[in-house]
Amino acid sequence: MPTNRRILLARRPDGLVTDADFEVVEEPVAPLAEGDALVRVLALSVDPTNRVWMREQDSYLPAIELGAVVRAAGIGTVVESKLDGFATGDLVTGLCGWQDYWTVTADSTANVLPAGLPVEDLLSIYGVTGITAYIGMLDVCELREGDAVVVSGAAGGVGSVAGQIARIKGASRVVGTAGTPEKCKWVVDELGFDACINYRSEAVGERLEELFPDGIDVYFDNVGGPTLDAVLANLAIGARIGLCGAISAYTRSTPLPVYNTPNLVMQRGRMRGFIILDHLDRFPDAVMELVGWVAEGRIKYRVEVVDGLERAPETLNRLFTGEHDGKLVVRVAES
Amino acid sequence: MPTNRRILLARRPDGLVTDADFEVVEEPVAPLAEGDALVRVLALSVDPTNRVWMREQDSYLPAIELGAVVRAAGIGTVVESKLDGFATGDLVTGLCGWQDYWTVTADSTANVLPAGLPVEDLLSIYGVTGITAYIGMLDVCELREGDAVVVSGAAGGVGSVAGQIARIKGASRVVGTAGTPEKCKWVVDELGFDACINYRSEAVGERLEELFPDGIDVYFDNVGGPTLDAVLANLAIGARIGLCGAISAYTRSTPLPVYNTPNLVMQRGRMRGFIILDHLDRFPDAVMELVGWVAEGRIKYRVEVVDGLERAPETLNRLFTGEHDGKLVVRVAES
Repeated sequence: MPTNRRILLARRPDGLVTDADFEVVEEPVAPLAEGDALVRVLALSVDPTNRVWMREQDSYLPAIELGAVVRAAGIGTVVESKLDGFATGDLVTGLCGWQDYWTVTADSTANVLPAGLPVEDLLSIYGVTGITAYIGMLDVCELREGDAVVVSGAAGGVGSVAGQIARIKGASRVVGTAGTPEKCKWVVDELGFDACINYRSEAVGERLEELFPDGIDVYFDNVGGPTLDAVLANLAIGARIGLCGAISAYTRSTPLPVYNTPNLVMQRGRMRGFIILDHLDRFPDAVMELVGWVAEGRIKYRVEVVDGLERAPETLNRLFTGEHDGKLVVRVAES
Repeated sequence: MPTNRRILLARRPDGLVTDADFEVVEEPVAPLAEGDALVRVLALSVDPTNRVWMREQDSYLPAIELGAVVRAAGIGTVVESKLDGFATGDLVTGLCGWQDYWTVTADSTANVLPAGLPVEDLLSIYGVTGITAYIGMLDVCELREGDAVVVSGAAGGVGSVAGQIARIKGASRVVGTAGTPEKCKWVVDELGFDACINYRSEAVGERLEELFPDGIDVYFDNVGGPTLDAVLANLAIGARIGLCGAISAYTRSTPLPVYNTPNLVMQRGRMRGFIILDHLDRFPDAVMELVGWVAEGRIKYRVEVVDGLERAPETLNRLFTGEHDGKLVVRVAES
């Protein structure tokens, strides 16, 4: 049997993850039981939620147990199957974890993917990343034609797509926030946002006030903290805020404060958190429309592929230091 | 003509209001113009929003201009009318302001009230106070049978009614917060809440954790700040927060911080601010159902009447120091 490298959670990280937070074990893959399928992991999706799951408190899924393989979504190919619906060679997606081989059982959440699309695309624009942008902007933020829109994390995997969807669906103005001049340039020049505020060097609140004299109708939030607060201070009446994530909070023991929630009363605003797994019924609509937009060249996206399972921890940290554009994927094996 | 005492806003208050923030003028009532009606003000509703309107920034209504009469809702009786739909002796409600006489024009928002109900009730349980509790709990918080509910400002005019409505509509548990042992006792013993947390002497977060092991489904918020934050830390999945007001913020230049908004993501929570004037179409339903509940003895309420227009400022302050139970009304003249 082949050897399975597995990255286990050894302790709860404090801030960014370090090598000492993990234990790497190598063990032979066990012979396949009746009713199971063995999947060779090809690539891992690197998502802020991986870090959330490492914390002690349960979230929308239970915390990863100490000693267990780190939970992560990914894609693999079936190398042996004794499980109905899974044939050798099938491309499969699900919570495979940080390991080389994933044993799928009848209880696993695992879905066979259509053949013919690159693994990186299936993990980004046609995966949870693109679908989150779609459902967050259209269903949660209830984008309407003419809305003035802000997207934080605009150079990230989700934010970059969310802003482009707003534009396609008739937003009057789309402004992003990002953390470097290069990211801001990419967001405006390549993705077609109207403006992008560098939150590290500019006063976000003042810039929003200038850019939105009539207030912000829709805010797609990936970061929380001071950026959320600056948006709350500049809401239009009836504003809708979709909380997709709060990356400013996930590596801190106490999140950054927000002061302007009373403005939600004055402006009759709505703020709603969402988890994409609650919206599985909308996945087919999302993928179908995204495929069309990509084919027409109306949506651009960027995927950075990092080679090697062993680089999953350092790659995860880059989500929190901001050292990336677009979607980060770890390649575990050649497809 | 009679003399009209008018309390004008002389400057923007800082914190609680003081005499120096106002100028009291006495002037004869001008002869009535064609198309106007003259109303003798009988009683004023004392509401947190009065203080909001005194601030420099516009809110859902423009800020009160310096030198203008202080904006406030109230009830009066028509003493002379040259305006269609208003007859001498009619009871009228609207934004009459802190003055003895109110000149209603065709443009005024003024409504004739049914005869036969006490003025105090029309300004509390059957007025904006009771209607806000009703619409906030049922339409904004979307209360469902079996929900576990928290109401802040539970001894206040709105909060005391909101909690009782939740109970009537099948909440599994209703817990209030208030600022003195006497208020908490009233809320539990007289109003029938399951518990009431004294936010001045108890750790609100810990108490909520004990009282809601499965989390909070609905929070009717009148205060904002640390109480809102403690609720955010204890949400059930799919929780709904109705932001009716943020009394902790209105006398401060910077509101108190809230840290736990990221929990709205994890718990897929919704937070929505509302202003009762957006819901005028629901007023008749609300009043009809409230009248029935009061008649059946299922809703109790308390109104404290303070005598004298000149006491409006000091009475307003009591909303922010917490020195009152239930609804505060200033009586301007005998009805």
